Amino acid sequence: MNAIRVGIVGVGRIGRMHAGIVAHQLPQAELAGVYDVASSVADDVAASLGTVSTVTVDDLIDRVDAVAICTATDTHLALIEQCARAGKAVLCEKPVASTIADIDLAAAAVDASGIPFMVGFNRRFDPSHQAVRDAVMAGTVGRTLLAHIVSRDPAPPPLEYIRGGGGLFLDMTIHDFDMAGYLIPSPVIRVMAQGGALIDPRVAGEGDIDVALTVLTHADGTITTIDNSRQAPYGYDQRLEVLGTLGMVQSENVRINQSRISDAAGVHTQPLQNFFIERYTEAYLREWQAFLTHLTEGGPSPASVADGRAAAVLGEAAWASLRAGMPVDISPR
Amino acid sequence: MNAIRVGIVGVGRIGRMHAGIVAHQLPQAELAGVYDVASSVADDVAASLGTVSTVTVDDLIDRVDAVAICTATDTHLALIEQCARAGKAVLCEKPVASTIADIDLAAAAVDASGIPFMVGFNRRFDPSHQAVRDAVMAGTVGRTLLAHIVSRDPAPPPLEYIRGGGGLFLDMTIHDFDMAGYLIPSPVIRVMAQGGALIDPRVAGEGDIDVALTVLTHADGTITTIDNSRQAPYGYDQRLEVLGTLGMVQSENVRINQSRISDAAGVHTQPLQNFFIERYTEAYLREWQAFLTHLTEGGPSPASVADGRAAAVLGEAAWASLRAGMPVDISPR
Amino acid sequence: MNAIRVGIVGVGRIGRMHAGIVAHQLPQAELAGVYDVASSVADDVAASLGTVSTVTVDDLIDRVDAVAICTATDTHLALIEQCARAGKAVLCEKPVASTIADIDLAAAAVDASGIPFMVGFNRRFDPSHQAVRDAVMAGTVGRTLLAHIVSRDPAPPPLEYIRGGGGLFLDMTIHDFDMAGYLIPSPVIRVMAQGGALIDPRVAGEGDIDVALTVLTHADGTITTIDNSRQAPYGYDQRLEVLGTLGMVQSENVRINQSRISDAAGVHTQPLQNFFIERYTEAYLREWQAFLTHLTEGGPSPASVADGRAAAVLGEAAWASLRAGMPVDISPR
Amino acid sequence: MNAIRVGIVGVGRIGRMHAGIVAHQLPQAELAGVYDVASSVADDVAASLGTVSTVTVDDLIDRVDAVAICTATDTHLALIEQCARAGKAVLCEKPVASTIADIDLAAAAVDASGIPFMVGFNRRFDPSHQAVRDAVMAGTVGRTLLAHIVSRDPAPPPLEYIRGGGGLFLDMTIHDFDMAGYLIPSPVIRVMAQGGALIDPRVAGEGDIDVALTVLTHADGTITTIDNSRQAPYGYDQRLEVLGTLGMVQSENVRINQSRISDAAGVHTQPLQNFFIERYTEAYLREWQAFLTHLTEGGPSPASVADGRAAAVLGEAAWASLRAGMPVDISPR
Repeated sequence: MNAIRVGIVGVGRIGRMHAGIVAHQLPQAELAGVYDVASSVADDVAASLGTVSTVTVDDLIDRVDAVAICTATDTHLALIEQCARAGKAVLCEKPVASTIADIDLAAAAVDASGIPFMVGFNRRFDPSHQAVRDAVMAGTVGRTLLAHIVSRDPAPPPLEYIRGGGGLFLDMTIHDFDMAGYLIPSPVIRVMAQGGALIDPRVAGEGDIDVALTVLTHADGTITTIDNSRQAPYGYDQRLEVLGTLGMVQSENVRINQSRISDAAGVHTQPLQNFFIERYTEAYLREWQAFLTHLTEGGPSPASVADGRAAAVLGEAAWASLRAGMPVDISPR
Repeated sequence: MNAIRVGIVGVGRIGRMHAGIVAHQLPQAELAGVYDVASSVADDVAASLGTVSTVTVDDLIDRVDAVAICTATDTHLALIEQCARAGKAVLCEKPVASTIADIDLAAAAVDASGIPFMVGFNRRFDPSHQAVRDAVMAGTVGRTLLAHIVSRDPAPPPLEYIRGGGGLFLDMTIHDFDMAGYLIPSPVIRVMAQGGALIDPRVAGEGDIDVALTVLTHADGTITTIDNSRQAPYGYDQRLEVLGTLGMVQSENVRINQSRISDAAGVHTQPLQNFFIERYTEAYLREWQAFLTHLTEGGPSPASVADGRAAAVLGEAAWASLRAGMPVDISPR
Repeated sequence: MNAIRVGIVGVGRIGRMHAGIVAHQLPQAELAGVYDVASSVADDVAASLGTVSTVTVDDLIDRVDAVAICTATDTHLALIEQCARAGKAVLCEKPVASTIADIDLAAAAVDASGIPFMVGFNRRFDPSHQAVRDAVMAGTVGRTLLAHIVSRDPAPPPLEYIRGGGGLFLDMTIHDFDMAGYLIPSPVIRVMAQGGALIDPRVAGEGDIDVALTVLTHADGTITTIDNSRQAPYGYDQRLEVLGTLGMVQSENVRINQSRISDAAGVHTQPLQNFFIERYTEAYLREWQAFLTHLTEGGPSPASVADGRAAAVLGEAAWASLRAGMPVDISPR
Repeated sequence: MNAIRVGIVGVGRIGRMHAGIVAHQLPQAELAGVYDVASSVADDVAASLGTVSTVTVDDLIDRVDAVAICTATDTHLALIEQCARAGKAVLCEKPVASTIADIDLAAAAVDASGIPFMVGFNRRFDPSHQAVRDAVMAGTVGRTLLAHIVSRDPAPPPLEYIRGGGGLFLDMTIHDFDMAGYLIPSPVIRVMAQGGALIDPRVAGEGDIDVALTVLTHADGTITTIDNSRQAPYGYDQRLEVLGTLGMVQSENVRINQSRISDAAGVHTQPLQNFFIERYTEAYLREWQAFLTHLTEGGPSPASVADGRAAAVLGEAAWASLRAGMPVDISPR
């Protein structure tokens, strides 16, 4: 079997990481090229990974079997449509597109073309998080009652980042909205969101918040909370918990290392791993393995356009709820 | 110094526990008598603890310096007023009274008489929980952002218990409402409560729920969640967490014992301590020490009528919010 | 049934603790008197616990069904013989006597009289340690291979204490020698001990050491290590571990409380419980319950003279091994 | 700067892992070729990693700046001498050679040629273990008193493996002997080893053991124990602990993932990572980074021939001690 030829569009931080995984860690794939609007950046990445950089996106798409879209969100829809027309598989970084309307257009393009498509919801592929889902799906905890998702970044991003991404519920909580759907089988029917610019008042000037607490009500009565903070001085805090009638399953944090000092002041362990690149190293690799398997074996997407849409719907509902100071019902699609 | 003479009114499970503490673990106090409407129960307790049982409450009040009220909630107000008239100090089990109006009457009686008065909010005196509050008050975690209280009973009470206690928000969450005020300096201004009869549908017939998620919004923007379940098969789950701008402080659970087995299936530790008598043994003792210190040294009550009222106000607001499906504002007193 | 009348001989720190347990926490027993060579100490203890102090040991023995011997080690043999003659049950603090020869005399007195007798090996009754033994005995870990006992005091005792107690292997490791016999079914056949005065050089002048590592070889090949230090700045370190062919079972430490702070420097929990009174509170109570059960129901002693002898034999062998720099064989009795 | 050209001699399991690291994870190095006596194996590895396989070792050495020796131990000396003659740097898998005499010849060749040389003591580069050493060297725990190394494989190797490697103290404990020297600054002056064929009696027929407990006495009185078992059903158990006068520092195990289930039977976490490839992934990468830094910047080797010799000396002393049933003194070199 020939290796699957993969191209990366957009080789900023996350794109470069994806390119490295394809180049080095996936025997069944080959990094066939990269593209970036900043052509010198693309050239550097290509040189360091032993591949080529292309002058246009079309050139890249021509050379490959699958494209990873790692560009700014507002370019996603056009790129997805371009790949769909060319019949090339797509792994698209979250969120799928900037608005629900655009996501629906992306879904239409994917559906019409029949291309394999997966959203880059990396956390679904983290072994600890996946073990939580597996336990829930296997009935280990019984009927689900309460779920908690804690998702805190170590330090706030630059203000410019906040500006472009649709605000906390779309640039950050989007992962947690997807996780809620991934963990709890029953669909979300209501969203109540609260929060504020409690860490850095300047984010209020950008129309954003930096601390949020969102409550999701599922159709079967299960309640999920999402705790978000753009700052956690002890590291990247990523926890899950599901209580059911038979027990509880959790995914705990990962520390920088496993050393431990005991002295007269107490017992001291290390801070948490700093951020997503370190914390989700294995998840990103497993995400690629899942994508390649989906591409060769078919079946339902491990993270479909519909999943991406569902997360975005919750993100928009959260903003609406925050502004109204009231719960917002989710209309079934 | 003479020992402080203490009398216990009501020697059911919790009253008997209090009587045992006074009899055996407090050198500065003396169990001077017990009273119960079931006189044979009072006689038994008195005999086993080397004290007397009295025929009337008045007799008991006459004999003592301080009274612990451990009877059914609907008798609290009359007993508090009786003790106030007699000028005897009161340690009253939570809740202070059945309604806010009655609590206000109790407060008036306490204020008019000037008697030392403390509500039995035992969890305030748990060393782990208190360390969380101390860290918050000392500024160790900086400005508070998010707080979580998990409070789950091991198994549901009999349906009759549910009937009498005002429902989950008043018989169970009342402790957590108090804990929220104890931990977070800024007052609660809004309550949003959700929940259902998810474990045992029969409690719906009693007008009650068995799972709840309550969100408290504090005046400074801090958000506190309270997670309640009447059933947690792994034991009595009692956790606190406060995130601030400088860090996080938590109070973790206590297991039955510290043994641990590692085998091919994984690493296995023990379930949590079963219920409040075991989990809060030390807290109850420290509650009594705090009460006796308050009684002899004066100063603000470690858990005042106002604290008891504040918790009850949140409990009523939670019921109102649940019924309305909307957040409910708390009017400042 | 009448309460079992208990007397305490010697009410220093440990004796006072025993007296308090009998007075307050054992419904089936009654503290019938105390004796101490320092009569004013005995008077104080008696007054605070509502019992009498006697002028002579004989007076005490006359008044009671069972005697707890909590005096200096060199008085144990005479007291045991006195109780044996009077036919009174004995709970004797460790070690049973100062020499193997004296222990044999004590054993002879106990055997001849048929009195119930138990050594105060409190750690056998710790729920966590007992769970380790139970797992070993139940075959949960399979055939035992390696065992580790860590037993470190928080801070060195006064030099005078060291002088009187037979040195580290007899005043401190004696508990661990007993624990080795309690945990591992196969008898010890060889002892290799090492150590030195590494913390405080002055203890060398007393002929003692403050750090030791002892290796016990059991008849079936299982190897047990005992790690002792008279100083552990982070608290009283008491751990067990047994590896077998099917798995491992451990008893872990207990922290002062369960609070935990996470900040930029890491995750910080509390120091360990300070010393034996705090760490083994529950063990001491369960030791008394086991003694009273043995006294009323008969059967093999939960901690017999033979057990006390076995521990002392290992203590003497450890000293011999340390001095010789060689392993020492244990001759079967 | 040109990339450092690296060649791998021997591409069995461990050699292939090294080749993969060089090919993919070290930007400053280039995998310039591989060699194996089984030429088809070398061809396969070369093809999959995009490099060449050479017909002879000489050919490989000619093409490269540095050689990783990953062949059977009895070929190490000749290969080291060959590299030394050619002036090529060497990263040699442990042990350096089969006997102390051969190690001395290897040391002579290295010293005479001045080539950079490093032993593949991967555990030195594990972040958790290194944090333990750093704490000891920084004086965080004060003067060292007691150290413990637990090193247990998940399951016994095939009997053939046992045959060739010099037995447990040389094929397994060699890592722990090196770790003892790495952690504790004071040299080892005495070795006392015990053990047996307790898991699989057939290993006794090979002159080997499968369980061992080794005690090392350091010149300053510090005592180190090494606990080895060829079988630990719960996974690859790799722990360190150093007690000093100021505190304790430990390196704890790593579980397969961080999920946790709580039910009526207790709280269950995952088994440990299975074996060295998984457990020490990061350590192997950091070992290569240290080797390349040593190669370009000079200075003392991060794991010198002398370190390799010291570990082998302890291994031979352990066998001598086990056979004699006595401690064995280590003569200073």
